[in-house]
Amino acid sequence: MYDMGLVVALLQLNPKVGDLEGNAAEVERAVALAAENGADMAITSELIISGYPPRDLLLDPEFVVRCAEVTANIETPIPLIVGTPLPPTADRHLPSNGTMRLVPGRKAKVATRKQLLPTYDVFDELRYFEPDKAPGILRLSDNLSIGVTICEDAWQHAGEVPADYDADPIEQLAAWQHQGEPLALSVNLSSSPYHLHKEGMRGDVVRAASKTLGHPYLLCNQVGGNDDLLFDGRSLVAWPDGRLAQAPAWCMGVFLVDIEDSNSGRWLPWPAGECCDECSCDVETIAAGSDPKNPETGIDLLAAITTGLGDYCRKSGIKQLVIAMSGGLDSSVCAAIACRTVGPENVLGLAMPSRYSSDHSLSDAKATAEALGMELHTHSISELHDAAEAELSDELADGNPVALENIQSRLRGMMIMALANSRNAMAITTGNKSELAMGYCTLYGDMVGGYAPLGDLYKTEVYAVAHAINSEAERFGDKAPITESTLTKPPSAELAPDQLDQDTLPPYKILDSILESHIESGASASTLIDLGHDEKMVGWILKRLHDNEHKRWQMPPAPRVSNRAFGQGWRQPLAAKK
Amino acid sequence: MYDMGLVVALLQLNPKVGDLEGNAAEVERAVALAAENGADMAITSELIISGYPPRDLLLDPEFVVRCAEVTANIETPIPLIVGTPLPPTADRHLPSNGTMRLVPGRKAKVATRKQLLPTYDVFDELRYFEPDKAPGILRLSDNLSIGVTICEDAWQHAGEVPADYDADPIEQLAAWQHQGEPLALSVNLSSSPYHLHKEGMRGDVVRAASKTLGHPYLLCNQVGGNDDLLFDGRSLVAWPDGRLAQAPAWCMGVFLVDIEDSNSGRWLPWPAGECCDECSCDVETIAAGSDPKNPETGIDLLAAITTGLGDYCRKSGIKQLVIAMSGGLDSSVCAAIACRTVGPENVLGLAMPSRYSSDHSLSDAKATAEALGMELHTHSISELHDAAEAELSDELADGNPVALENIQSRLRGMMIMALANSRNAMAITTGNKSELAMGYCTLYGDMVGGYAPLGDLYKTEVYAVAHAINSEAERFGDKAPITESTLTKPPSAELAPDQLDQDTLPPYKILDSILESHIESGASASTLIDLGHDEKMVGWILKRLHDNEHKRWQMPPAPRVSNRAFGQGWRQPLAAKK
Repeated sequence: MYDMGLVVALLQLNPKVGDLEGNAAEVERAVALAAENGADMAITSELIISGYPPRDLLLDPEFVVRCAEVTANIETPIPLIVGTPLPPTADRHLPSNGTMRLVPGRKAKVATRKQLLPTYDVFDELRYFEPDKAPGILRLSDNLSIGVTICEDAWQHAGEVPADYDADPIEQLAAWQHQGEPLALSVNLSSSPYHLHKEGMRGDVVRAASKTLGHPYLLCNQVGGNDDLLFDGRSLVAWPDGRLAQAPAWCMGVFLVDIEDSNSGRWLPWPAGECCDECSCDVETIAAGSDPKNPETGIDLLAAITTGLGDYCRKSGIKQLVIAMSGGLDSSVCAAIACRTVGPENVLGLAMPSRYSSDHSLSDAKATAEALGMELHTHSISELHDAAEAELSDELADGNPVALENIQSRLRGMMIMALANSRNAMAITTGNKSELAMGYCTLYGDMVGGYAPLGDLYKTEVYAVAHAINSEAERFGDKAPITESTLTKPPSAELAPDQLDQDTLPPYKILDSILESHIESGASASTLIDLGHDEKMVGWILKRLHDNEHKRWQMPPAPRVSNRAFGQGWRQPLAAKK
Repeated sequence: MYDMGLVVALLQLNPKVGDLEGNAAEVERAVALAAENGADMAITSELIISGYPPRDLLLDPEFVVRCAEVTANIETPIPLIVGTPLPPTADRHLPSNGTMRLVPGRKAKVATRKQLLPTYDVFDELRYFEPDKAPGILRLSDNLSIGVTICEDAWQHAGEVPADYDADPIEQLAAWQHQGEPLALSVNLSSSPYHLHKEGMRGDVVRAASKTLGHPYLLCNQVGGNDDLLFDGRSLVAWPDGRLAQAPAWCMGVFLVDIEDSNSGRWLPWPAGECCDECSCDVETIAAGSDPKNPETGIDLLAAITTGLGDYCRKSGIKQLVIAMSGGLDSSVCAAIACRTVGPENVLGLAMPSRYSSDHSLSDAKATAEALGMELHTHSISELHDAAEAELSDELADGNPVALENIQSRLRGMMIMALANSRNAMAITTGNKSELAMGYCTLYGDMVGGYAPLGDLYKTEVYAVAHAINSEAERFGDKAPITESTLTKPPSAELAPDQLDQDTLPPYKILDSILESHIESGASASTLIDLGHDEKMVGWILKRLHDNEHKRWQMPPAPRVSNRAFGQGWRQPLAAKK
């Protein structure tokens, strides 16, 4: 029906939650670019107009009506399918997570509504949306009908959901085809959050759909960060024989593909001509039977958390960052991330030595700041520390000695926040997931800040990111920002003489292995012991993990990079559990 | 079929989330008491075995299996219906929110499963449970069949749900009766969270069910606090003609009622013989056409937040509390609440005057502490304040002056936390909902602490609670803890010379009225202006409410007393929204 095969554009964009007009304008510009480059039709990601996740904005009926209106007014030179919240179909119903069809010269029309509403982990769609029951069939023209699904709609078919749904929208499309009119292709508008090594899972989902349907299955994903959620892009297309074509990660662009040619994928960076340094910006073609290339862990995580902090700042209007630098691994990596996102000229480091600080604390922090080209100020906490101890000496004499350690951390927190407040800047929290899990951190001390770039990375992953930062600098001929000393010295909080993390915690390699099995895969104590871990250590770690829930309740948002954070989508209950 | 009519016991108990054996033991003791006092059968509240809300504990299949096992082993002298999580009915399904039937001499059996799973506001049941479709019919003996519903199951029928469900379990029971075997009564196992003035709504729900079914409808509610949720008890029974009988609020007990006599309600305090001072401990009988008595706002809120803090401490093993006392309203009320929950001998107040503190700050704090019989220590922050300003003077010279104000608040936060850490005590956050809404508070300063007793009370409601505290003291012949000066002086943060809240904020009466309409009732800016509020003020308040979401993200848990907190059930998204 089309000479060259139908060319579809997947608009891989980065919407800002709540900015309806801005998001719509971005869609207009991207679809114009797609049309100029030969696209016959285009699709966006899920809920591109509201941005994902819109959360409680959806509780305002006026907001939902505005989303549909703004969508209907989008101008497009080619047929376009746009993801947007839609007003309820009946009185006393919830809105829908749906799509509208825009065709030049015709009136905008509601196309389909999402059937499977994920309500687990970071998802909570049954709070906000009514599930639909109708198969997603869309007649675009006399000779072109397609299947339209939205994100989760495709995951049941691949068995990649934690509990089964009653319906399978892919089977519905297949049944429709058996009854008569064939579909040329099916599309999936997604806002599929990132976690490390999710590529293979998404590949399975689109392959299963394409195989069942016997036609190409095209998935357009959101990219960028909104609040604590990250989206990696990696829009992708599957053909019935198992071939895949995948768009780049972590950048915006238009992914053009001729559905009759799996080698036809083209990537148009967006805004036009600009592209990031991190990605090669090529479409990856994957043979049947092969999986998408797993990116190197450190490199992918570096891109992920840079995207998270960068979008958080840009979308919230934050222009300057302040960061406490101890010369340790976490703060050095955070400083490097901060410089990548707002530029080194907008990052202020603060070294705050105390009587327990080692010499390398300051020298490592200075070397890192210098390599990054950022400012570093030094303010000792010694006088404040002495004054606090003098004022409180009677109170603390016979108490828990942790009080004295925490005073230092909290004085530093006070100073960091003073500089942030004074400059209208945001302070960054430098803690990682391993120490947050163990509560090996000070509430209102090193936990202060508006965003925790490493809050969902285990310590061993922070090392991988550090190496990726250094490799990148070396590739560009720059000095490696994370010093050899920082990378090799034993981690220490330096809140007591000669204190080392490993005096209190198990070695990070063991700790992280146990935490990861328990948190990400749900391994129980007995499973962990069966895996060969020491029984006493397992008990100690799990108890400490539980006992520190109250600290995590008050932590700032952290970009989600793992399969499971600390129930950050849905906060964990507090202490009352036995 | 029973000479005197059937006597049913509603076990209004206070379970601890996760303490399965403890909760089951409590049920055993209460049902034994009920039987001794003539009960023919008994019911518990919803999910009494896991406690409500069990949240992510439900993601562990072993936990759910244990719940059912522990329930099956409960010993009871009379037929008993117990609310508990139940394992999934099929592979790859979620667990159920259900009930088990225990009859002496017979094997424990699953009775019913909840159909309507609320997933809005503080509820998130579709995350964890599979909805059932079968009507809740339970044959207890040859001549006794009853209807069994669980909490939300009854609310659709009264129209008291934000969006309609597909099913109406009350209509299902009615349809069953029309077809044949009549039901003697229907019960509802509830964990219906408190908010101020919810009594009327619950009355409507049970009346609607009883009227449709033509037989008595008995609702047993949980009491007490778990995490941030509060349950007020107030179990109640409706008869088809509209009569009601309601159990006391805020205390545990066994509510006995002969279903053929609406004046038969008896209240057995639990543990046997003990009762609180606040409630009259009488069953309230309400005539058809009348509503349950609305308790006085200050008195009911006082009971609510005392329950919240008390249960939080008791269930988490917290024995001592530390509190910053400024002589202002919020900290004085918090001190009184603290003394009510853990006893004045376990509360330490800290007065921390600065160069900007007025004389009455200290004298009012001292008078309150003395009246309460609690310890009060005084530590000036002057030297620390001077040292901090000296260390940071260059940095802060040309910056935002709020940095200097916050330093004082954060130094106080550091000192409060030092004392809490040293004594293994918990610090209390004293802020109220009005100032948290406006961000008129300091992150890591006056916001430090593990629990915020007033975090969901508007300032005007804090005044009502203060008067209730004083009235109660006077009733017992004690000195009123909240001084006249504290009650009448204009509120001030005292972080700058002669600073008053009202220099920055609108008068609290106006502010609270706007906040309450917007937050609790969803009134938009245009609605608020139509209500007569000043347009500029409305715009200023709503912008500030939005701009301070990042602070509320990091606030400690607060007992929920309002119709809507700050999306505390589901945390609000952060700043990126336009």
